[in-house]
Amino acid sequence: MPPAHPFDDDKLREECGIFGVVGVTDAANFVALGLHALQHRGQEAGGIVSHEAGQGFNSARRFGYVRDNFTSQSLMQTLPGPLAIGHVRYSTAGSKGPTQIRDVQPFFGEFSMGGAAIAHNGNITNADALRRELIERGSIFQSSSDSECIIHLMARSLQRDIPSRMEDALRRVEGAFSVIAMTRTKLIGVRDPLGVRPLVLGKIGDGWVLSSETCALDIIGADYVREIEPGEMVVITAEKGVESVRPFRPQKSRFCIFEHVYFSRPDSIIGGRSVYETRRQIGVELAREAPVEADLVCPVPDSGTPAAIGFAHESGIPYGMGIVRNQYMGRTFIEPTEQIRNMGVRLKLNVNRALIEGKRVVLVDDSVVRGTTSRKIKEMILDAGAAEVHFRIASPPTAWPCFYGVDTPQREKLLAATMSEEEMRDHLQVDSLRFVTLDGLYRAVGEAQGRNPDQPQYCDACFSGEYPVEPADQIEKGFKLKTAAE
Amino acid sequence: MPPAHPFDDDKLREECGIFGVVGVTDAANFVALGLHALQHRGQEAGGIVSHEAGQGFNSARRFGYVRDNFTSQSLMQTLPGPLAIGHVRYSTAGSKGPTQIRDVQPFFGEFSMGGAAIAHNGNITNADALRRELIERGSIFQSSSDSECIIHLMARSLQRDIPSRMEDALRRVEGAFSVIAMTRTKLIGVRDPLGVRPLVLGKIGDGWVLSSETCALDIIGADYVREIEPGEMVVITAEKGVESVRPFRPQKSRFCIFEHVYFSRPDSIIGGRSVYETRRQIGVELAREAPVEADLVCPVPDSGTPAAIGFAHESGIPYGMGIVRNQYMGRTFIEPTEQIRNMGVRLKLNVNRALIEGKRVVLVDDSVVRGTTSRKIKEMILDAGAAEVHFRIASPPTAWPCFYGVDTPQREKLLAATMSEEEMRDHLQVDSLRFVTLDGLYRAVGEAQGRNPDQPQYCDACFSGEYPVEPADQIEKGFKLKTAAE
Amino acid sequence: MPPAHPFDDDKLREECGIFGVVGVTDAANFVALGLHALQHRGQEAGGIVSHEAGQGFNSARRFGYVRDNFTSQSLMQTLPGPLAIGHVRYSTAGSKGPTQIRDVQPFFGEFSMGGAAIAHNGNITNADALRRELIERGSIFQSSSDSECIIHLMARSLQRDIPSRMEDALRRVEGAFSVIAMTRTKLIGVRDPLGVRPLVLGKIGDGWVLSSETCALDIIGADYVREIEPGEMVVITAEKGVESVRPFRPQKSRFCIFEHVYFSRPDSIIGGRSVYETRRQIGVELAREAPVEADLVCPVPDSGTPAAIGFAHESGIPYGMGIVRNQYMGRTFIEPTEQIRNMGVRLKLNVNRALIEGKRVVLVDDSVVRGTTSRKIKEMILDAGAAEVHFRIASPPTAWPCFYGVDTPQREKLLAATMSEEEMRDHLQVDSLRFVTLDGLYRAVGEAQGRNPDQPQYCDACFSGEYPVEPADQIEKGFKLKTAAE
Amino acid sequence: MPPAHPFDDDKLREECGIFGVVGVTDAANFVALGLHALQHRGQEAGGIVSHEAGQGFNSARRFGYVRDNFTSQSLMQTLPGPLAIGHVRYSTAGSKGPTQIRDVQPFFGEFSMGGAAIAHNGNITNADALRRELIERGSIFQSSSDSECIIHLMARSLQRDIPSRMEDALRRVEGAFSVIAMTRTKLIGVRDPLGVRPLVLGKIGDGWVLSSETCALDIIGADYVREIEPGEMVVITAEKGVESVRPFRPQKSRFCIFEHVYFSRPDSIIGGRSVYETRRQIGVELAREAPVEADLVCPVPDSGTPAAIGFAHESGIPYGMGIVRNQYMGRTFIEPTEQIRNMGVRLKLNVNRALIEGKRVVLVDDSVVRGTTSRKIKEMILDAGAAEVHFRIASPPTAWPCFYGVDTPQREKLLAATMSEEEMRDHLQVDSLRFVTLDGLYRAVGEAQGRNPDQPQYCDACFSGEYPVEPADQIEKGFKLKTAAE
Repeated sequence: MPPAHPFDDDKLREECGIFGVVGVTDAANFVALGLHALQHRGQEAGGIVSHEAGQGFNSARRFGYVRDNFTSQSLMQTLPGPLAIGHVRYSTAGSKGPTQIRDVQPFFGEFSMGGAAIAHNGNITNADALRRELIERGSIFQSSSDSECIIHLMARSLQRDIPSRMEDALRRVEGAFSVIAMTRTKLIGVRDPLGVRPLVLGKIGDGWVLSSETCALDIIGADYVREIEPGEMVVITAEKGVESVRPFRPQKSRFCIFEHVYFSRPDSIIGGRSVYETRRQIGVELAREAPVEADLVCPVPDSGTPAAIGFAHESGIPYGMGIVRNQYMGRTFIEPTEQIRNMGVRLKLNVNRALIEGKRVVLVDDSVVRGTTSRKIKEMILDAGAAEVHFRIASPPTAWPCFYGVDTPQREKLLAATMSEEEMRDHLQVDSLRFVTLDGLYRAVGEAQGRNPDQPQYCDACFSGEYPVEPADQIEKGFKLKTAAE
Repeated sequence: MPPAHPFDDDKLREECGIFGVVGVTDAANFVALGLHALQHRGQEAGGIVSHEAGQGFNSARRFGYVRDNFTSQSLMQTLPGPLAIGHVRYSTAGSKGPTQIRDVQPFFGEFSMGGAAIAHNGNITNADALRRELIERGSIFQSSSDSECIIHLMARSLQRDIPSRMEDALRRVEGAFSVIAMTRTKLIGVRDPLGVRPLVLGKIGDGWVLSSETCALDIIGADYVREIEPGEMVVITAEKGVESVRPFRPQKSRFCIFEHVYFSRPDSIIGGRSVYETRRQIGVELAREAPVEADLVCPVPDSGTPAAIGFAHESGIPYGMGIVRNQYMGRTFIEPTEQIRNMGVRLKLNVNRALIEGKRVVLVDDSVVRGTTSRKIKEMILDAGAAEVHFRIASPPTAWPCFYGVDTPQREKLLAATMSEEEMRDHLQVDSLRFVTLDGLYRAVGEAQGRNPDQPQYCDACFSGEYPVEPADQIEKGFKLKTAAE
Repeated sequence: MPPAHPFDDDKLREECGIFGVVGVTDAANFVALGLHALQHRGQEAGGIVSHEAGQGFNSARRFGYVRDNFTSQSLMQTLPGPLAIGHVRYSTAGSKGPTQIRDVQPFFGEFSMGGAAIAHNGNITNADALRRELIERGSIFQSSSDSECIIHLMARSLQRDIPSRMEDALRRVEGAFSVIAMTRTKLIGVRDPLGVRPLVLGKIGDGWVLSSETCALDIIGADYVREIEPGEMVVITAEKGVESVRPFRPQKSRFCIFEHVYFSRPDSIIGGRSVYETRRQIGVELAREAPVEADLVCPVPDSGTPAAIGFAHESGIPYGMGIVRNQYMGRTFIEPTEQIRNMGVRLKLNVNRALIEGKRVVLVDDSVVRGTTSRKIKEMILDAGAAEVHFRIASPPTAWPCFYGVDTPQREKLLAATMSEEEMRDHLQVDSLRFVTLDGLYRAVGEAQGRNPDQPQYCDACFSGEYPVEPADQIEKGFKLKTAAE
Repeated sequence: MPPAHPFDDDKLREECGIFGVVGVTDAANFVALGLHALQHRGQEAGGIVSHEAGQGFNSARRFGYVRDNFTSQSLMQTLPGPLAIGHVRYSTAGSKGPTQIRDVQPFFGEFSMGGAAIAHNGNITNADALRRELIERGSIFQSSSDSECIIHLMARSLQRDIPSRMEDALRRVEGAFSVIAMTRTKLIGVRDPLGVRPLVLGKIGDGWVLSSETCALDIIGADYVREIEPGEMVVITAEKGVESVRPFRPQKSRFCIFEHVYFSRPDSIIGGRSVYETRRQIGVELAREAPVEADLVCPVPDSGTPAAIGFAHESGIPYGMGIVRNQYMGRTFIEPTEQIRNMGVRLKLNVNRALIEGKRVVLVDDSVVRGTTSRKIKEMILDAGAAEVHFRIASPPTAWPCFYGVDTPQREKLLAATMSEEEMRDHLQVDSLRFVTLDGLYRAVGEAQGRNPDQPQYCDACFSGEYPVEPADQIEKGFKLKTAAE
């Protein structure tokens, strides 16, 4: 029986975090720290590849947390050298089956001009078609990962150097991707033309860093330089620094707005904006859009906290910890007892009964996906004697799956795909339920005029159903795009 | 090389949590859940003993978190029966050396009238003398634990039933203790005459529960009945319910005030008071006693949060998450690299730079022990561009070690043992540093008149140096009590 | 499901091997090598205790082979000092349930004059009564082992030094025992008054060695000095060498004759006799007592080999490897598939078909216990086309269980307990079946006149039903001694 | 530090065993048993791939013995279906570095017409050149194994079915190979045109078996049908049975004569001859070619036993077990202590001193490679008091490395590469040393006229230096073929 993940099914989950560094002593140590800081982007497994002149490429791939694997001397000594990249991966639940160690990145390929390793955050929307074509031509796939296409496309390129082969490969690929790669001497970073997934550049001493988020620069004491731009490829060596090329036709950027809502860590800076401040501001918007008479504003821990602080501040209602999280809760259980399986959210959260009792409570959460957790929390709050329960959600209704590197349930499992806001309120049996509007969310990320319906500033497909890149593989499997009528 | 515990040395640590249940199907499952809810009281190891008629006693003792061990069907099936008790244990760092599995409780003894298992929270202050005496008489100790004395004293009692043997044994024992024990049919709970450590009684269906804290009643859906009183022993069977006896001479109670400050979970109720509300109230007292002009109130996560909310509310200064915790930080590393060892607090905390920059920040923490963490946090805050840093501490200066079941450094390692408040401020190089007063703390726990210096209502030895039970073993090893001059 | 032991149930199994050394650098390394050479006496688990001045006693106990545990630097570094003892233990199948690590010897006790560790080979026949008495007086047992009685009896002795306490303890003990013990400075060896189990003394440089068998002296390059005599206790220090005392009333010795037949390694010397030569001589006796016309003499590997060589030599029939052993066969399977469970002896043995086909084959085996393996081997031989199968067994019929430290099935499971030699032949469906006679066996061990029926020279209870020490615990559990009529 | 293999360096080692079955229920269980019987051909790691309609291909690859991995229900349940193949692999010591799990076969490839798995015994002598060519064309290698070339060549074939692709691939490959492969429905077996490595066909019920040796047919109760012929490919389905094709130009066969000497199990039948009987006959030839006056013939366990039996029989000198093997000796140690490292052969063998003392001893061993073990054994025998030591070796001097799937030291490490028989005798300091002649060996395998020097009947390159397939990769790396002068 595979491990059980009690709460995975009620959050959207970023599938990967990536990190790379060049020009430092024992680069893999820095990568381990960076991946630890990016652990929220993927907790199932992680991998690091390093290169040392004379010793070639070395790699280690492990299931479990970075801190449980990549902190020991005996392992890290096997990863010497001044250049290393790494990857953390999310455990995708359900239909796809358990990950095997061969699916854990970075992937490595030996080419005639030398080896290269790549780590990919995102999702290739034409991976199935590419895989069929590559197999037809004699490539042998080792993993079930869409990302492996990139390395096979590189192997078949006629270019004579690896960055050029990577350009060739990525021009064949559709979808959302941020990629960090390495050769024997070069650290390479690329973002897709829409810049859906994040990637930032940092500097540490004489060395350079690429990372999914800025919080991973902080942990190693690196300075934030800038974001890699949508459609940009940077090729970095210790000697020559950063060279920038533009392999793709220019497009208007469409960064993932859900990174602001939930995926990124609150202490990261995205697009020049503090994630924490954006989330707090969503709370402010919510308090304006959907005010309510109440005695207490409580976050649903931990992701609802900044918005709850903003809501409390704007509304003047006192802020308090009405729900307490068990800090020793892990994400998986091996062969759990029936009783454990049935405990669900109680293993993780407990109501602070003394605070809740008799109060009209505003619960602030980041999102509603299936609604199963929201329902259990509501019950716990009412059992503890709350007079009223008002849900305020710091994102619009999640009505469409994401195909750009996020683990989402099938559309029919999304509560908002089949119910209106009012129906959801009835379903959850709460006194009120309100989501921030799409315009309110855009205002919170700094778009004073709200969303531009003709040319949206972000990728908001999970809310709007408007997919900036056609999800070709999914359509082939039967996914129906939004119709004009919807 | 033993595992490294990066931050253990800068907090006082409760050494144990205990839990027992009788009169339910598969009692060990409930114990596992209860211990999971008490995990904050001890993370190194845990054990469960159960009894099933016809199968006798079964036990399992494991290193690591409850959720990683006592959730699997294959293990829990080995612990059948309607009666079970359990224990979680803290990893005591440093001089005492690593724990061995034989030191993990519950301890078990086979007596002529049947077996008994005991789980102990607290510390026996005359354990060394007792151990010498017992060895002289032919007892063979298997562990290095002070708690093992109890089972040997029971083995030598001339009483004909186990509760009476336990009374005999506990009358020889000095110090602080809450004990949960079991025979083939009885669940037994005892608190020492001063009631230093907590122990509560709960009811679940036809069964009964004993637990260190009420938060562990919540997780299994048990109702809180009452506290076991100081000096009380309860003997519980499924058939006859709770019988109460008083084995000790009555004394005025002296509950550990630090349970309110830090040890207990905020969602627990102690002595009829919400721990969360007490901590919030300490923040209110601090804001009154030590106000400051500032732009932002930040908790040091996670224990400083309730007091920070109270301080912000009372002072009117906005509350914000200026420090973000990495949720994937564990407590130990096996054979860590030098770099990991040197990272210290950065592995766990990151500054929310965008929020902090340019602000005058009030940092609210629960306590200062060695001051090492406080110093690193101050540096991180200043590096992030804070204009001023003001520390507000939700407990008085910790100037004396605890000998009643808490892991404290030797006295000379306590910052407050050798420095005045002003010297500590200089040492930490912050703009201001203020601790709540002892009277302020007593007011926050509901003593409107503050501390009664003639007969303190709580054990506050760690602040006052006034030890309600003489620490005999420690004095023999050279510990000096507070003199009249101090 | 516990591990399955495919062939355990058809051999008698020695339950222990013991080894100790004093006066050498890193004594534990020598003990590990000695235990490796004694591994045939116990394969389930092993333990070593060492002592180093200043560091006290250290111990390690592990399941599995010595070579898999006690060969690694990291473990052996934890066992420093010039004095160490060790123990290997057999996995007793079936009714007794799986061994727990707390049952693995050496056992250790801390007394008022210092600690002592003991390792025991044999069985205490009044252990149940002793245990009841000790518990009544307040001792707490940690294991289910009969050997633990010794350490508790020592703890309660009023003697002021450990060897004297050991004398006290062993005078209370009945049964068969060879014991190796250690204090901080002394290595101690004792054999019971009948000398049922072996124990030899060796010398290595300035140090001294005690071992179950001489083959373990060979592996470390120690010289064989002499056997510890029945009823003798030796107390050895590096400084004063060997002191011998006689704690017991003198008795005529009764060494276990099955050590010659099967338990001991063929390269060991027992009582001045080569085990290999004795076994070869049993084959000679068999060829004389039970000749047969045949084309080939085959041993049942590996224990039947010396007797087969003797039989072939005496009879003039060619010797050949008609059965080939798989060298990669271990003793246990974890959770085996049904098919593996049913394979039985085929996993371990294969017939050398080309050699066997059309031949009249004499199969020489060491003993028949339940007869299940004999039956399967016969089938394999016939399937391979043998013309005739003649079994010759190098021991008399095993009709009685051993209670002196050997794992035997209950009496009713022993084929010879319920069948005559002729009935066994019919049961096994072989062309002939003959056992060496008891007198033939005695002649092979050098008693030219055969067995002295009035005062047998060996313990041969498993063949004769004459128990030199009354098995008190077993009788209490219902075991019936041989009656005059039998 | 990698595991230490005490005796690997003084034997030639077969590098692989392969096994496959089609048309039975739970084929993987049969493969596990077959691999267990072939464990002597490779002990480091093993792998099984199975196919079940509807569930596709499943695989498991593990380090360690078959019995420790592929016997558990929980693993075997993951390998369902009526068709499965497997592989055991030898741990190649030294320069090549430790094997990684990705090097463990069977290898699997997904082609446009479906998947295929292959298991390879042998060595591809032009693998380096093929690998370079394949990488140049865009193949990505996952392992360091020469065998992986086959699957990439298959991937690039333009044929439309897998057997034809395999023919294409194998026609590009030079060297020695026996291959077992599987598609979704077919079991495929191939031997190279010279038939250097063995491969046999068996029948079990309605199913079919392919195996390296016949001993693995015995364990599952399959009947031996015939050998796959040199240059033959068989394609087997449950429905249509065995179809035979001949993809290669016909050549005169050159089976590896060392399979008779050492690699194969004595209970296997090769080329219609019993391996045991051949080895016994080598002993007979040795006794004729190199007689000696002596008192005792001893095998060097275990591989010298059949030849020793033949030598004793032919010479009339008594046969005895002068050297006893420790049955609990494994092949590897993890991080061994210095003392263990220095023990060498004593961990594995002990002299039966009582038998040896004062005797003139003939030691019969299968081969001499580096001579290090022979030297240590000689010392042990003399230390035990032997009067004379005469070595008789059941193979000619091993003077050349094997490049056809056998792990041999570099040429300069082979004792016979640099010394004459007389020099070797001096080096080993024994009373006499004689090897069987090449003609004697050929007679023992049934070639009454001995070796045909113009067209040798076997591959005997390790003795003669005459390589039937040019070792192209090795020559490129600097290996010098035998010159006319040698």
